[in-house]
Amino acid sequence: MRFPQLVLRLPDWLEEALQDPGRVYLTAEERMTAVIRLAQLNVEHGTGGPFGAGIFEHEEGKLLAPGVNLVVPMSCSVAHAEIVAIAIAQRMVGCFDLGGLGMPRYELVTSTEPCAMCLGAVAWSGVRWLVCGARDEDARRVGFDEGPKPTGWQQALEARGIGVLADVCREQGAAVLEQYGRTGGLIYNARQGR
Amino acid sequence: MRFPQLVLRLPDWLEEALQDPGRVYLTAEERMTAVIRLAQLNVEHGTGGPFGAGIFEHEEGKLLAPGVNLVVPMSCSVAHAEIVAIAIAQRMVGCFDLGGLGMPRYELVTSTEPCAMCLGAVAWSGVRWLVCGARDEDARRVGFDEGPKPTGWQQALEARGIGVLADVCREQGAAVLEQYGRTGGLIYNARQGR
Repeated sequence: MRFPQLVLRLPDWLEEALQDPGRVYLTAEERMTAVIRLAQLNVEHGTGGPFGAGIFEHEEGKLLAPGVNLVVPMSCSVAHAEIVAIAIAQRMVGCFDLGGLGMPRYELVTSTEPCAMCLGAVAWSGVRWLVCGARDEDARRVGFDEGPKPTGWQQALEARGIGVLADVCREQGAAVLEQYGRTGGLIYNARQGR
Repeated sequence: MRFPQLVLRLPDWLEEALQDPGRVYLTAEERMTAVIRLAQLNVEHGTGGPFGAGIFEHEEGKLLAPGVNLVVPMSCSVAHAEIVAIAIAQRMVGCFDLGGLGMPRYELVTSTEPCAMCLGAVAWSGVRWLVCGARDEDARRVGFDEGPKPTGWQQALEARGIGVLADVCREQGAAVLEQYGRTGGLIYNARQGR
């Protein structure tokens, strides 16, 4: 084969960190605390950038799929936490649309507000809610180039039936970013050869 | 394992369609013609949506990695042609940055202007050029929700050192979209359960 398959694999520590498949995360804060912990563990284990995410059942509060940033270990710039969580969730339900007929309503919880790419991915994913921790500006302050995002993106999502809840545990999410920056974590922006 | 791996696999016909690994695509039109052919073949084989892409060496004209839309067959809303091409290319060079030190300058050629997600992915990828065929409005006319894109996105890419060339073989790219729409191809927008 001339062209390889793409394989993205969650880090080994992650299954252990989420041992109880029956656990219910009732509030937005509980869900955010869980994904910020994934971001923190991802940095501690050296398995990627300081970002965590999860797809939760909006009403019931069960975690369908987690995601962590895998850009550097997987040599894949699209392997952001949100993208990983969305793709794993869709694989688990066997459908490209997490908003399909007869499904529970799903929500994407992310430790930092989505970058331009992940914002676009949210619109395609089928989730009905987006819950954000740290802000875009918190990620940019550390040095990440979050890309060209439209002003009024919250309204653009809401016009598509996707509710947005921002600043949930923002300080805790931002603290993981700051620590990553302070301790010399790799800022994997593109075009570093110039 | 509670959570599956993500595996994205190019369709079998694709290796055969790109048999000559030494082939050089000298002009933007030649490169575009090649990726529009991938879009067309993807529809004919029933292996995904009407979109094709490729990462080419900007100066030398060799194809590093192709991509086609795999959203429906892979049950993965992020598996757009551009995302697939970028991720395969990065896997082939073993780096998350296609603009790394000592690399040739790479260009992303896509049969239709990137949606919001893929636009963000371009900024993270490391490519130095983006070459577009059909326009955003051609995809929206068929029914695809291309998502929230900022006005002036071309300038936002150019500010990052990514040149944009639009409307290359636009009619041919748009014709593949139109035919897909006319013949009842699945418009895989999200939240179809509502």
